Amino acid sequence: MDVISVIRTKRDKGELSPEQIDWVIDAYTRGEVADEQMSALAMAILLNGMNRDEIARWTAAMIASGERMDFSSLSRPTADKHSTGGVGDKITLPLAPLVAACGAAVPQLSGRGLGHTGGTLDKLESIPGWRALLSNEEMLHVLDTTGAVICAAGDGLAPADKKLYALRDVTGTVEAIPLIASSIMSKKIAEGTGSLVLDVKVGTGAFMKNIEDARELASTMVALGTDSGVKTVALLTDMSTPLGLTAGNALEVRESVEVLAGGGPADVVELTIALAREMLDAAGVKDADPAKALADGSAMDVWRRMIAAQGGDPDATLPVAREQHVVTAPSSGVLTRLDAYDIGIAAWRLGAGRARKEDPVQAGAGVELHAKPGDTVTAGQPLLTLHTDTPEKFDYALKSLEGAWDIAAAGTAFTPNPIVLDRIA
Amino acid sequence: MDVISVIRTKRDKGELSPEQIDWVIDAYTRGEVADEQMSALAMAILLNGMNRDEIARWTAAMIASGERMDFSSLSRPTADKHSTGGVGDKITLPLAPLVAACGAAVPQLSGRGLGHTGGTLDKLESIPGWRALLSNEEMLHVLDTTGAVICAAGDGLAPADKKLYALRDVTGTVEAIPLIASSIMSKKIAEGTGSLVLDVKVGTGAFMKNIEDARELASTMVALGTDSGVKTVALLTDMSTPLGLTAGNALEVRESVEVLAGGGPADVVELTIALAREMLDAAGVKDADPAKALADGSAMDVWRRMIAAQGGDPDATLPVAREQHVVTAPSSGVLTRLDAYDIGIAAWRLGAGRARKEDPVQAGAGVELHAKPGDTVTAGQPLLTLHTDTPEKFDYALKSLEGAWDIAAAGTAFTPNPIVLDRIA
Repeated sequence: MDVISVIRTKRDKGELSPEQIDWVIDAYTRGEVADEQMSALAMAILLNGMNRDEIARWTAAMIASGERMDFSSLSRPTADKHSTGGVGDKITLPLAPLVAACGAAVPQLSGRGLGHTGGTLDKLESIPGWRALLSNEEMLHVLDTTGAVICAAGDGLAPADKKLYALRDVTGTVEAIPLIASSIMSKKIAEGTGSLVLDVKVGTGAFMKNIEDARELASTMVALGTDSGVKTVALLTDMSTPLGLTAGNALEVRESVEVLAGGGPADVVELTIALAREMLDAAGVKDADPAKALADGSAMDVWRRMIAAQGGDPDATLPVAREQHVVTAPSSGVLTRLDAYDIGIAAWRLGAGRARKEDPVQAGAGVELHAKPGDTVTAGQPLLTLHTDTPEKFDYALKSLEGAWDIAAAGTAFTPNPIVLDRIA
Repeated sequence: MDVISVIRTKRDKGELSPEQIDWVIDAYTRGEVADEQMSALAMAILLNGMNRDEIARWTAAMIASGERMDFSSLSRPTADKHSTGGVGDKITLPLAPLVAACGAAVPQLSGRGLGHTGGTLDKLESIPGWRALLSNEEMLHVLDTTGAVICAAGDGLAPADKKLYALRDVTGTVEAIPLIASSIMSKKIAEGTGSLVLDVKVGTGAFMKNIEDARELASTMVALGTDSGVKTVALLTDMSTPLGLTAGNALEVRESVEVLAGGGPADVVELTIALAREMLDAAGVKDADPAKALADGSAMDVWRRMIAAQGGDPDATLPVAREQHVVTAPSSGVLTRLDAYDIGIAAWRLGAGRARKEDPVQAGAGVELHAKPGDTVTAGQPLLTLHTDTPEKFDYALKSLEGAWDIAAAGTAFTPNPIVLDRIA
């Protein structure tokens, strides 16, 4: 087996054999295949694609590169969720304790943000004392005692994916559906969850800008999960505008706690409950009522125990950014568009996100929304509040907001997108 | 300027801007763009192509990465030749002294072989004492005093190409016409020749397996040369069967000396004279008669002086391999095919070529042909003689010869391919 023949096969639009895939993933993990060879192969895959058999084998080979976790000792069925990433997407925070309160165990291995989409771990780290890094034993203990755990994925899971993801990030080969699908699913399958609900975002603020690509990615991942014995369902959900009224780390934790307290923005509540129902259904938990678990405080109880079990203080005051800047509506009328990507870039520039993996994030930075598409606004009213510890970044953030919204004449009929666009199972 | 946006431009089938091309070639030469980034870009170029403007700018940027030579001090016009490489392609050896004998100066910067095609420098190094590495001053001195020089290209010419070529070799990105054309032409233009004749090989033993690809490569290179002020002409020539009756280093030197002595195989003589006429015409040398210069010994005189000027002994006995194995014709009839690629692989396996850049080659190894397509053969007569210092390789070489020829019934009408298939100017 030699790497050039593997690259040539895909370059010339051929199908990679199981042996070629197993060998190239293993040899890359061991360092026998060099980065410059794998990046040429990744570009050939991006441009020429892989079929279902190839993607399944590629995923299996990445799983086989590391350890597999085992939750069979737990008394409850496991359910996990993965979002492809959006702006203001804090859903994991209320969702994991909610689903646990309804009777499933939720092992939520999460990541940090890179680029304009926030990371779940970055958000939770704005809670004083909270730790993202747990040993496998600690993770199982938190999961067993509280019903949910949100923590960083260990180095032992799919190391081939870790190495390949870092390579794709610097070689213009991120946007390949076979590679995105196998990257996500290798970690989720290795993690050992019994069921999985995928939240595939569609719109300006998402990886997938159109519903056809999102549908292809979703159905690829559902097939991969199902073939590996993980009950997998995908919802395609709207990411043309931010979720909720906040984008930023502590800002989103505060909004999540509002949802757990029975309040919060309608779209966040709707999507949290929709995903909770799918997770409980996939895990085989009958007769659960997520709306009730939000209203009666049982989801909040799990949240408090889960945060405390990882060293966090659920009663601590959350960090607030040192400076604020209010952006007002330039005219009166109906807000018909508030662009998710532009808001995401603004939050990122204000300090909520990072440009490089090793950069820190500001806990208090971000964007607060005072209106959402469909709302009526009046000229001069606050539209957005920008938060940052580095006010010299206001101008840079404001640049990304040029053209970020449309306001139509008062009385214009306008129906916002539904949150859930499609379901694939 | 950042490399990911450059990669994305080509990945998404866009046109690279002059600024993007200049920047990426310079940044790669300096090491700011990493190998894994350049290989992803090379694969995107291979799959999505470059237009004429992009190829011209890419070539110019590679020339600008190093020094340019200057032959304006010579009293004669300069003419160079480049072959895209074939099996038994020893034409440079008789051609350079022949064209010099007819009145042009021939600065022939050559390479070593890699894979199944031999390298001109490897062949000449089978002459005891001969040196391939000359300083720029030594090169000009040999050229000025003998009229021709065949030597290794210095490190100063197009260093970006040197780095990129080595990268393409290990990443499955060799077979991209824009990259092949710019690689060849950047070195030839930087070398400073006034005119250039390209021998673009077509057939199983060549890079270009079909005439359409060969024509595209040839016309791309002719346009690049012409736009840079180098008078450039291309011949497309047959490489379905080896040139002449030998493939191997010392074996080919011996055959070249036969041609310079006025003998040698008809196809080698025909192509040498055709290329010589093109070179002399491109250089503006009138009334030269290459056939006469072979017949009257004047080309041989230049050869002897050129070899001696680089430390070689033109009268030395050439190395002979320690072992021979004769392959006989399995049936009687007309030889209708003797495959260039299979013979090239056999010669390579016998030790005439190298698998890695740093491997040595055997001076005496190779394949001798006793018949060519169109010849009548008798069952049991010698068809090939294999030469090697490592007889344990005979079996391995013989495997590559399975199916390497066809013998049709005696009397079957058969016309071999012409040597020169097309001319592009």
